[in-house]
Amino acid sequence: MPEQLFSYQQLSQFVTAVFKKIGCSDKHAATAAEALISADLRGIDSHGVARLSGYVRLWEAKRVNATPEVKVVHETPSTGVVDGDSGLGLVVAPFAMQLAIDKAKNVGTGWVSVRHSNHFGIAGYHAMMALPHDMIGIAMTNASALVAPTFSIERLLGTNPICVAIPAGNEPPFVADLATTTAANGKLEILQRKNQEAPEGWIQDKEGHSSTNPHELKGGGALLPLGGDREHGSHKGYALGAVVDIFSAILSGANYGPWVPPFPAYVPMPENMPGKGIGHFFGAMRIDAFRPAEEFKGHMDQWIQRFRNAKTVQGQERVLIPGDPEREAEKERREKGIPLLSAVVKDLKELGERFGIPSM
Amino acid sequence: MPEQLFSYQQLSQFVTAVFKKIGCSDKHAATAAEALISADLRGIDSHGVARLSGYVRLWEAKRVNATPEVKVVHETPSTGVVDGDSGLGLVVAPFAMQLAIDKAKNVGTGWVSVRHSNHFGIAGYHAMMALPHDMIGIAMTNASALVAPTFSIERLLGTNPICVAIPAGNEPPFVADLATTTAANGKLEILQRKNQEAPEGWIQDKEGHSSTNPHELKGGGALLPLGGDREHGSHKGYALGAVVDIFSAILSGANYGPWVPPFPAYVPMPENMPGKGIGHFFGAMRIDAFRPAEEFKGHMDQWIQRFRNAKTVQGQERVLIPGDPEREAEKERREKGIPLLSAVVKDLKELGERFGIPSM
Repeated sequence: MPEQLFSYQQLSQFVTAVFKKIGCSDKHAATAAEALISADLRGIDSHGVARLSGYVRLWEAKRVNATPEVKVVHETPSTGVVDGDSGLGLVVAPFAMQLAIDKAKNVGTGWVSVRHSNHFGIAGYHAMMALPHDMIGIAMTNASALVAPTFSIERLLGTNPICVAIPAGNEPPFVADLATTTAANGKLEILQRKNQEAPEGWIQDKEGHSSTNPHELKGGGALLPLGGDREHGSHKGYALGAVVDIFSAILSGANYGPWVPPFPAYVPMPENMPGKGIGHFFGAMRIDAFRPAEEFKGHMDQWIQRFRNAKTVQGQERVLIPGDPEREAEKERREKGIPLLSAVVKDLKELGERFGIPSM
Repeated sequence: MPEQLFSYQQLSQFVTAVFKKIGCSDKHAATAAEALISADLRGIDSHGVARLSGYVRLWEAKRVNATPEVKVVHETPSTGVVDGDSGLGLVVAPFAMQLAIDKAKNVGTGWVSVRHSNHFGIAGYHAMMALPHDMIGIAMTNASALVAPTFSIERLLGTNPICVAIPAGNEPPFVADLATTTAANGKLEILQRKNQEAPEGWIQDKEGHSSTNPHELKGGGALLPLGGDREHGSHKGYALGAVVDIFSAILSGANYGPWVPPFPAYVPMPENMPGKGIGHFFGAMRIDAFRPAEEFKGHMDQWIQRFRNAKTVQGQERVLIPGDPEREAEKERREKGIPLLSAVVKDLKELGERFGIPSM
């Protein structure tokens, strides 16, 4: 698949312009662009500008409100519930994460559940907002149902990612950002494009049999929870995805399980929805609410160095620290540019023509 | 393996008496016995009275302090750090969880990291303390290193379990209690006793090759993180186990990674330990710090019913809700008695003779 390289600046200007054209304020457009492109920078191509036209289609379908009144509808000293007014998750999520950070400044930790939102890009962007404050950041979101719980042939959970970002001292931060499935949907999309088989344990067919066909989801199949099958702990991946669903949606009043709104605008909304929009959950914990930040960071450095220097299995150079691959991608892409597939470039060009934005 | 049945009352009296004989106060002995036997009740036999003689040996080796001064050494409105003074984790953990609950009453949530503790039994017991208060309970702990991170041949993490307990309305609570490995060590112990092979993806040998030999750990092998191998997401299980380690030990000042003290008293302590004892982490979130508890519980009921009634793969009766198997075990064992293996009964009899406690 041929690729073209773009600078962060090029993408940022273009994406900001598109968000403004659909009616976002300058501030919202800039926030949404930064959150979206952070995925491309960090090498999570499935969640970046490749989705921009999908967001625009949701706006056209009136499922995204470009001028939301994002509000705190309930709070205590350490908690809050935010109503996103159907805004872009890329805008609603940073608002909610900032609220969690502000509460952590006051009482040690902050925990915010969000309803009436939309897809928020990568969890990592939001969780990492805590790092410059010497806080641990946590972000999670539910998503439309693609995953079958253990023993189910029905899809009842999204890929429901969890991110935990933890500051270190001289070492870079620890950033674990993971879908609660064996493989993220983005990895499956790559196999679909290349028409390659998926490993066992990633997907099942509509009868619930293990399958290696990456197109299985179109025929009623499902992604599998982390673990793959019961013998390998899929009930644990299912439980983790369920916790994300409950924290994100039942604490806030969003939709959950099979009722979470779909990302593709052409897919009809589920019937009898029990809540509003998609749900997220954010947390911030001030390090010095537990112990002096410098002490903590010194031990984080020691932890990271011990794990990074572990003896490896033959053929592997080193043990990775969560966040290493994304950080390396970001370093390379900031220097050399962000590679986009030609199909994505074409998609962006069409958006540019439609909105009268000079091409990148 | 022949088994014998005992009533909860029989075990409770006996275990309480043993803890008193090693010097615990009446209150500590009762708390420790209740926490320990909750594992037997809930069907997690590896963590219950089968470990009682192990705790006694730790006391003999002066690694457990029977009369600890458990203290809050740092706090903010929503956080606390507890020093367990080398006490039984079975006593220190309920103290810390109660602190988290008290903080949640005041400011919405409470988060407590614990150092200088010992093994705390099952995470579920502690997390479930939150349920009667209409709170979500979270409990996790690190443990001595048996698990190799992805690509490592060294064991650097414990099985580091996470429990999340969430109240429902008419339905029983949602209780996800999971080791962050493909299979808990207890399951491996069962295969060892029966001399049966383990499935692929549970363990590796000392070179890091996949193995089905359940005795592999004695020869330098390791348990594998949830996911099993990189292709099946073991980097996610590794990241989750790492988060448990960091929250439990680096926030509190306990030992982490390969430095966590071993459970068997005959295993020497690691050299150059960076902290004190074992670490735990607890959280409590008041439901009505987010929305009215009755509303929340109504939606939890709907969530649970929808998942329980999902269409199943052929041969499976129903989709389980996290906590179902343990609750069913508890119901049966409260009625019919708790089955103990003859080796465990013998172990307890020896303890009884030694301490002059009438046999059960």
